[in-house]
Amino acid sequence: MRKAMEPLYIQPLLEIREYLRLAFEPSADQQAVEERLDRYITEVIEGLYGAPRVTTDTALERLSLLRQEAAVPGSAVHPEAYMSRLVHEVVPHSINTSSPNFIGHMTSALPMFFRPLSRLLTALNQNVVKVETSKSFTALERQTLAFMHHQVYGCAESFYAEHGQNPESTLGMMTSGGTVSNLTALWIARNAALLSPDDDVKRDGYALALHKNGYRRGVIIGSSLMHYSIDKAADILGLGSDGVIRIGCDSRGRIDLSKLAKEMAACRERGDRILAIVGIAGTTESGAIDPLQKLAEMARAERIHFHIDAAWGGPLLLSDAHAHKLRGIEWADTVTIDGHKQMYLPMGTGLLLLKDPLAAALIEKKAQYIIRGGSSDLGRRSLEGSRPAMSVFLHAGLHLLGREGYGYLLDEGIRKTRWLAGLLADHHAFELIGEPEINILTYRYIPAPLREAVRTGTLTPEEHNRINRFNERLQELQGRQGESFVSRTTLSGIEGLPESIVVLRVILANPLTTEEHIKNILDLQQTIAEELELSFG
Amino acid sequence: MRKAMEPLYIQPLLEIREYLRLAFEPSADQQAVEERLDRYITEVIEGLYGAPRVTTDTALERLSLLRQEAAVPGSAVHPEAYMSRLVHEVVPHSINTSSPNFIGHMTSALPMFFRPLSRLLTALNQNVVKVETSKSFTALERQTLAFMHHQVYGCAESFYAEHGQNPESTLGMMTSGGTVSNLTALWIARNAALLSPDDDVKRDGYALALHKNGYRRGVIIGSSLMHYSIDKAADILGLGSDGVIRIGCDSRGRIDLSKLAKEMAACRERGDRILAIVGIAGTTESGAIDPLQKLAEMARAERIHFHIDAAWGGPLLLSDAHAHKLRGIEWADTVTIDGHKQMYLPMGTGLLLLKDPLAAALIEKKAQYIIRGGSSDLGRRSLEGSRPAMSVFLHAGLHLLGREGYGYLLDEGIRKTRWLAGLLADHHAFELIGEPEINILTYRYIPAPLREAVRTGTLTPEEHNRINRFNERLQELQGRQGESFVSRTTLSGIEGLPESIVVLRVILANPLTTEEHIKNILDLQQTIAEELELSFG
Repeated sequence: MRKAMEPLYIQPLLEIREYLRLAFEPSADQQAVEERLDRYITEVIEGLYGAPRVTTDTALERLSLLRQEAAVPGSAVHPEAYMSRLVHEVVPHSINTSSPNFIGHMTSALPMFFRPLSRLLTALNQNVVKVETSKSFTALERQTLAFMHHQVYGCAESFYAEHGQNPESTLGMMTSGGTVSNLTALWIARNAALLSPDDDVKRDGYALALHKNGYRRGVIIGSSLMHYSIDKAADILGLGSDGVIRIGCDSRGRIDLSKLAKEMAACRERGDRILAIVGIAGTTESGAIDPLQKLAEMARAERIHFHIDAAWGGPLLLSDAHAHKLRGIEWADTVTIDGHKQMYLPMGTGLLLLKDPLAAALIEKKAQYIIRGGSSDLGRRSLEGSRPAMSVFLHAGLHLLGREGYGYLLDEGIRKTRWLAGLLADHHAFELIGEPEINILTYRYIPAPLREAVRTGTLTPEEHNRINRFNERLQELQGRQGESFVSRTTLSGIEGLPESIVVLRVILANPLTTEEHIKNILDLQQTIAEELELSFG
Repeated sequence: MRKAMEPLYIQPLLEIREYLRLAFEPSADQQAVEERLDRYITEVIEGLYGAPRVTTDTALERLSLLRQEAAVPGSAVHPEAYMSRLVHEVVPHSINTSSPNFIGHMTSALPMFFRPLSRLLTALNQNVVKVETSKSFTALERQTLAFMHHQVYGCAESFYAEHGQNPESTLGMMTSGGTVSNLTALWIARNAALLSPDDDVKRDGYALALHKNGYRRGVIIGSSLMHYSIDKAADILGLGSDGVIRIGCDSRGRIDLSKLAKEMAACRERGDRILAIVGIAGTTESGAIDPLQKLAEMARAERIHFHIDAAWGGPLLLSDAHAHKLRGIEWADTVTIDGHKQMYLPMGTGLLLLKDPLAAALIEKKAQYIIRGGSSDLGRRSLEGSRPAMSVFLHAGLHLLGREGYGYLLDEGIRKTRWLAGLLADHHAFELIGEPEINILTYRYIPAPLREAVRTGTLTPEEHNRINRFNERLQELQGRQGESFVSRTTLSGIEGLPESIVVLRVILANPLTTEEHIKNILDLQQTIAEELELSFG
């Protein structure tokens, strides 16, 4: 455990006015304290970054944080004392997302350069809602969006010369994350579908616009593996959960096109207006990629908004070897990509791209003190208002890693996943579930007495449930130990699989994770499982 | 201009695999590069932080950023080279929000400690959507929300002991900013208003739920000074712009209660369901605070959701001298506060507080791989999904500044604003518009030939418009010079003022801003104005 820091200058704490001067006003004294804090943070990062353990085995309920009173502290605390406390009481019990043994969620070690950059961003404190509070960072954001738009839609450089910095054009927007991106995309889609010369959904609202247009209801349609942010969006946009139609998938987790066609015909008959078809490029469950080209054609034929949730898979476009898997993405009206996933950027770097640079007019808002019509202010056409200049991380990533760097990272993750799939396919105790399309893989442990029944396909429903419960328990035990972490999920609506199957889920994005780490995690799982078998009912 | 950095280790650039190892894998080489970058950033911050100029006089159109191609760079760029370029081409043309002469928007210098802290946060890369990707930071966020809930609602410590860390309770949520907070509040309000045992708005959607409940439409009601995020929320939630009813204000910018009562009666007659009454604690235009206690009573009497947008004014609760201005806030069902405004936290630290710890069940969503029912995962009941642990900034601010520190900062801003109001009241060329309630002040310049008409109240509409255009131009010229910055807005719907009056707007939140700075900014404005008078038509 790192030792605590003794306060340097302020023992006892200065009079509040002097203390605030120290905190806000650049001075030699401030510099001395800041340097001490910085060195301390550097030591903490060095001790933790890339360390093998994922977390402590301390249960959340036992953290001292849970024993603080709710009254806001009256007096200020020494910066060094606070930082020490944070480092001792909170940091060790967080999740070491940079650990090579943390292979269960969509977070990874990040490249080092974002650490100094984040300090710069905090110091600059830009607000990109408006040019008056960000100026050059507004231009930087637009340039960054042009890079990503080009990667997805590949328009000519003349297109970007025209639209890239044009206040009337919107190539996309940075968001706090994929959920806001998906919501924004579906907001645009809903408004577009219900817009007519006489009836303005922006004025009348959803209910009246629906009625005036002669529709019974609006629906969003996509596969059973759509992210739950689509359900959130449907609720927020007023569609209700009945407004989300989930279509079954083929054995590889891709939307079943014939079922989709049937459902679309049924919608027409019922008078339901399909507001958007959602394609997925990298399902959260298993990394599957929908047939984007075909979906685009089906949407186009009926003039339906086509949205692609490529929060996870979008960056595959930067890999020469795998970009072809996203063929058809260039036909999407809107595309969600998360920078904080496979672009290896800090959390909070979401992205929505718009094929049509004028589509965002459907959600435009103005205000007097800010965001005037005709201005270059980014907040005119975005869900969020004030927000940090996160685009600098994406701009930096594109330069500091380049296509070459991203391509290598993505290719390596997929290579290691294939290697793991091979290992599991031959394994006596684990069962690989589905072939991984990219770098997400699902599998499960089969307790010894049930292996023969699995091999011969003669599991009873009761035995199937027992395996489910076993894998739930296995995943919990492994997570609680804190040495390593694999996630779990329950797959449903996939051709050839039981309706509800609990699987372990591995995501191989962290470049610090080697084959040896993966092998050790599997071995550890097996050890836990074998102990569990002794006690499991 | 700061000199460029020469690359240290990687000349020519390493083979990509080695380069990525340097970027991701802790090592002595990595440390050396990171230290160099860190020192460079420190120099940049020292040169810029608190420096007097707001920005350069370079127009946005002339930035070199606008000349980049849209194709993503193929090869990685040296970190030092990239950072140099960013520092030379982007940073100088950004807005120095820490400048004491930047007194036009809601951004300020920040206390030094958030700089090292942001580096720690980036390194830890927690995702608080889920305990499995944040663990202790989930508990920290809940504790932070308890602090803020206590500050607003002042429940007993036993209440926080029960609900603070209880997964079934939601005292609030951290958001990316006030817009998402307001949207979330109104989402809860809409769902609550249309929820009945038989009709589930979450299932049926807005249109059908409205119909089943026998309402013509749903509306949100508040003053004419409601933030434009309310319009965004109304559009997104399906209410349409007709679903936002704006009530005129008294001469101090506070909602006119008798007009409100009349409009509420009219809603009842029309069969409109009032989904929420919105009170404002610190309007963006002029800092006015609505009569919160009265609004609460009116909402309560008709069982209407009462939301308070205290994005700006909420932190006044931390000032012994001014907390009384928010009396009644404890009756609000939901309260928006922005940490990145008067809590002096980095951008992206929004907050929504819920009086009823169970209200968030109205927007709850689940998913298999994440956010299981019954879990402690924060993402179950929030608009956003994956997001950074921004609550650590708020937790740190509450400890590092305490009530004493925040109180002092807030009191000082209000004191300086009163001082400025006095200065303007006696000024021969400027006209103070309205008495400032807190630390936002509006005024305008009156060209010499029109001063007599203003004094005697005999301005013609044409002359009024001329003054408006004059002040627009004055504000633009001052902003373009880059030395200092005051914003402008157009006030409407305020008793005793012309229907559309352009005013200059000062916000005094930056503790680095002294009376002398303010005086100099006024002098500069006067100089610009006097020159402008010579040419203005």
